Amino acid sequence: MERIYGRNPVMEALRSGQDIDRIYILDSVRGEFEKEIRRLCKDAAIPLHRVPKSKLDLEIPGNHQGIYAVISTLEYVDLEVLLPQLFKQKKNPVLLLLDGIQDIRNVGAIARSAEVFGADAIVIPAKKSAPVNEIAIKASAGALLHLPVSRVKSLATAIEFLGKNGVEVIGADVEGDTNISDLNLMGPLGVVLGAEGKGIDRNLKIYFDHLFFIPQAGEIQSLNVSVAAGIILYEIHKSRL
Amino acid sequence: MERIYGRNPVMEALRSGQDIDRIYILDSVRGEFEKEIRRLCKDAAIPLHRVPKSKLDLEIPGNHQGIYAVISTLEYVDLEVLLPQLFKQKKNPVLLLLDGIQDIRNVGAIARSAEVFGADAIVIPAKKSAPVNEIAIKASAGALLHLPVSRVKSLATAIEFLGKNGVEVIGADVEGDTNISDLNLMGPLGVVLGAEGKGIDRNLKIYFDHLFFIPQAGEIQSLNVSVAAGIILYEIHKSRL
Repeated sequence: MERIYGRNPVMEALRSGQDIDRIYILDSVRGEFEKEIRRLCKDAAIPLHRVPKSKLDLEIPGNHQGIYAVISTLEYVDLEVLLPQLFKQKKNPVLLLLDGIQDIRNVGAIARSAEVFGADAIVIPAKKSAPVNEIAIKASAGALLHLPVSRVKSLATAIEFLGKNGVEVIGADVEGDTNISDLNLMGPLGVVLGAEGKGIDRNLKIYFDHLFFIPQAGEIQSLNVSVAAGIILYEIHKSRL
Repeated sequence: MERIYGRNPVMEALRSGQDIDRIYILDSVRGEFEKEIRRLCKDAAIPLHRVPKSKLDLEIPGNHQGIYAVISTLEYVDLEVLLPQLFKQKKNPVLLLLDGIQDIRNVGAIARSAEVFGADAIVIPAKKSAPVNEIAIKASAGALLHLPVSRVKSLATAIEFLGKNGVEVIGADVEGDTNISDLNLMGPLGVVLGAEGKGIDRNLKIYFDHLFFIPQAGEIQSLNVSVAAGIILYEIHKSRL
């Protein structure tokens, strides 16, 4: 896990567009510097964490000046660059959008299934999602090294963008009205997966073309999200064979 | 995790047929007592671990006399009792047999999907499988408290028993020749799942009615075992709706 620390180096890394996983800043920092960091992080969809001095001292043995950045293990791709590329390559794209999935092993497991079933990319929001780090890569059996990952400021904006570009957006939901096996899964697809228990954010669902359900028996009525993702990806792959 | 220790209490628990998860015995113990413990463990499919004195001293503050037993959190059911019961209840049984799945979280995740898709039981061998303990129960989201679990001395014997009683035995395998969606999944089924990487034991496959595969793309070519289990259970459930 490579790290950059100190005010100038972190600012320079941000301005040069380097792939940064997240930034830690001393919780008492205020003023122009802090404002500029906040603006750049927001623009680049980089999570900014405010932490006490003890955390910085513990992580950085050198003179951290109240800030350090963790460099991304992966190179994130820009969704607005990726999608046209996929169409140009004559792909019939399948993108997985993860809404608030915070368990790092689930993110890895989902990426593994995505790779196995030939999906084209994973889209994660900058906020409220698990970091795509070494643990996630291991849990993905290396799939995250093959599969493009796009980090976006807003999932809602990403979903709107997909819709405008001819990608049908679907999501699994307890309120879903269509059995997954009755869906037409042949065209370009964006599949939204919500966190276990919470499901997909209410404000996102308005952009969906379909809310579907996976038929179930039993009393628990809730699949593990990575198992649900596997079943959806399996159905999509099957419909394209 | 309830434990029983001392020679007489452990022997008594074994003889009375109490559900024991596993037994730890001092590695230097020999003679009639040890022979009898070994025989009773084998008969009841209870794993027997030989450990150094330090392990016993650490786990048991009292006078352990070189042996202690961990009482099962679950009550295991006898497969030869369970199967006739399921038929009597007019069930069209689906049983999952786990071959060498040692990751406790995977066992839990598989049990969760089994419950969600209405499977009837899980069968595990006494040797080389993860203990069905509190961690597995948590990973199963409680499903292991609803779902009968049978622990058997030999999976091969269990599979033969299923076959003789009209249960078709199938397994997912890289060498499989039938696409899962081409299988007839309507009758009584025993589904064997192998450990990741290793797959199903070669000596078991000879008893199978079908070896099937899940169609895949991608470069990794291997689903997580709990995701594969979810897809198989989903297909079985779908075919019975």
